[in-house]
Amino acid sequence: MDLAVVGTVAFDAIETPFGKTDKILGGAGTFIGLAAGKLGVDAGIVSVVGGDFPEEYIDLLLKQGVDTAGIKVIADGKTFFWAGRYHNDMNARDTLVTELNVLADFDPVVPGQYLDCKYLMLGNLTPQIQKKVIEQLPVRPNLIVMDTMNYWMDTAWNDLMEVIAMVDVLTINDEEARQLSGEYSLVKAARKIIQMGPKYVVIKKGEHGALLFSSTKVFFAPALPLEEVFDPTGAGDTFAGGFIGYLAKTDDTSFENMKRAIIYGSAMASFTVEKFGTAGLLGMSNPDLYDRIRLFAELVQFDIDRVD
Amino acid sequence: MDLAVVGTVAFDAIETPFGKTDKILGGAGTFIGLAAGKLGVDAGIVSVVGGDFPEEYIDLLLKQGVDTAGIKVIADGKTFFWAGRYHNDMNARDTLVTELNVLADFDPVVPGQYLDCKYLMLGNLTPQIQKKVIEQLPVRPNLIVMDTMNYWMDTAWNDLMEVIAMVDVLTINDEEARQLSGEYSLVKAARKIIQMGPKYVVIKKGEHGALLFSSTKVFFAPALPLEEVFDPTGAGDTFAGGFIGYLAKTDDTSFENMKRAIIYGSAMASFTVEKFGTAGLLGMSNPDLYDRIRLFAELVQFDIDRVD
Repeated sequence: MDLAVVGTVAFDAIETPFGKTDKILGGAGTFIGLAAGKLGVDAGIVSVVGGDFPEEYIDLLLKQGVDTAGIKVIADGKTFFWAGRYHNDMNARDTLVTELNVLADFDPVVPGQYLDCKYLMLGNLTPQIQKKVIEQLPVRPNLIVMDTMNYWMDTAWNDLMEVIAMVDVLTINDEEARQLSGEYSLVKAARKIIQMGPKYVVIKKGEHGALLFSSTKVFFAPALPLEEVFDPTGAGDTFAGGFIGYLAKTDDTSFENMKRAIIYGSAMASFTVEKFGTAGLLGMSNPDLYDRIRLFAELVQFDIDRVD
Repeated sequence: MDLAVVGTVAFDAIETPFGKTDKILGGAGTFIGLAAGKLGVDAGIVSVVGGDFPEEYIDLLLKQGVDTAGIKVIADGKTFFWAGRYHNDMNARDTLVTELNVLADFDPVVPGQYLDCKYLMLGNLTPQIQKKVIEQLPVRPNLIVMDTMNYWMDTAWNDLMEVIAMVDVLTINDEEARQLSGEYSLVKAARKIIQMGPKYVVIKKGEHGALLFSSTKVFFAPALPLEEVFDPTGAGDTFAGGFIGYLAKTDDTSFENMKRAIIYGSAMASFTVEKFGTAGLLGMSNPDLYDRIRLFAELVQFDIDRVD
């Protein structure tokens, strides 16, 4: 298998200034897996759902080429449920409901056919679960990418630091990078995070784009200026899935290729935010994606001309 | 003359987390003029100062190639004074003191040798003063760039709209663009502002870069990720001065050249924020500038590679 993903597979209920949804398909593992599947990557998800999880959602993942053997179904349990509300500033949101349900006792088991994965994506989950997945792999993957959030900094600092030291790339948002490092400057924050173990840090700035740092290099990808951000749910996970999906598909972890992977992730996330839940990503065709990648290139491309 | 600038020439007293200054040289007109002068543009400033304004500051402007014939000295008046404090988030600041002094009765007079200027920069001032300067020019310049702020939206809406309709480029920050247009999306905000008259809108996002919009095109320039933003005072005006200075020097107002001008403005502003007041900009050599412009190119440059 090219890529194993551990992450939530969930129900989301979303309110934005543009409308609201009942329970729809969501979760970090879902968005990451679908984004990688869209790129033709042989990917599988390690997760857990309840007996209430519809067969049609499993079929939807399978149809996109995403293996679901690693999604354990707890027949008498309920699927993780999150409800949230966005306001005009789509960078912030209120959580209305968090029902962990079967996620509370999630004990990840990596199926045999995932054990030779060359790429591993650790979606945002407790660091203990992320670590358990790494430890089940008999051979270390080429590249391990980890997403996390401030909640684990507040509640599981030591576990978090242990897992961060085991990965190659950490993806994190700007405020969380500041919290993790104690540095306001993102340049200094990235340097400190790299000292914690990862060779690369991707700092996600939402509508302000994303920065990729190595110990000596930096790359910036803008977010596409959109008419409307309809629903940002899953944008960060789509970005991560596009990022590691591109790396897995091309099997090239050079800094130059990571730059392209950042652009792929950004472009795919720009589809996710256009509709509720997974609809924007699912509706994206390959020509749509390449058109948008060309827009990214046009957005930032310039010639240098000296005046002296 | 290539470029006439109207804007404040002032004393600033600044506190940041890194230190504080007594009264030093500041003002929008100062930063705009110096940035243009650094690019070898034949520029002059229309402004007003008091008898307390040191001769050495006039000499400093002249030495950078900036004409000061348009800076009226009111011998028994005091120079405009602003004091402010920045916190960790350098995007926001508290104003501690604003003493308008001679600026309160500023009646701009454009000197004869400025009247044939091909480029005109209206620094942030009351819209009435900006309009008076435009009306003194017998021939309309090639390009008029206007900066403004939310204060004039709150206190002089009709005057502001009248001047906005007279200019080619409006530079404005993101929150102000939202206030001016009533649109949260910057894409929609830019479209509405273009309907007010300007052919181009530059939306400044501070540490998140800048966007250039025409009715059909968009360009994004990042801000350089810096170790420290030491003092942001004057960054927006340096950006504007570098922008119009580059256009005036190359005498080319195509969209492609405006993209380069945005990069020049961004690169020059990145020097301004590294030291207090004008010190960063004044210490910048041409090789320094070109090195930094190369950093901008490296920061955003990527190849496209398709995976299908």
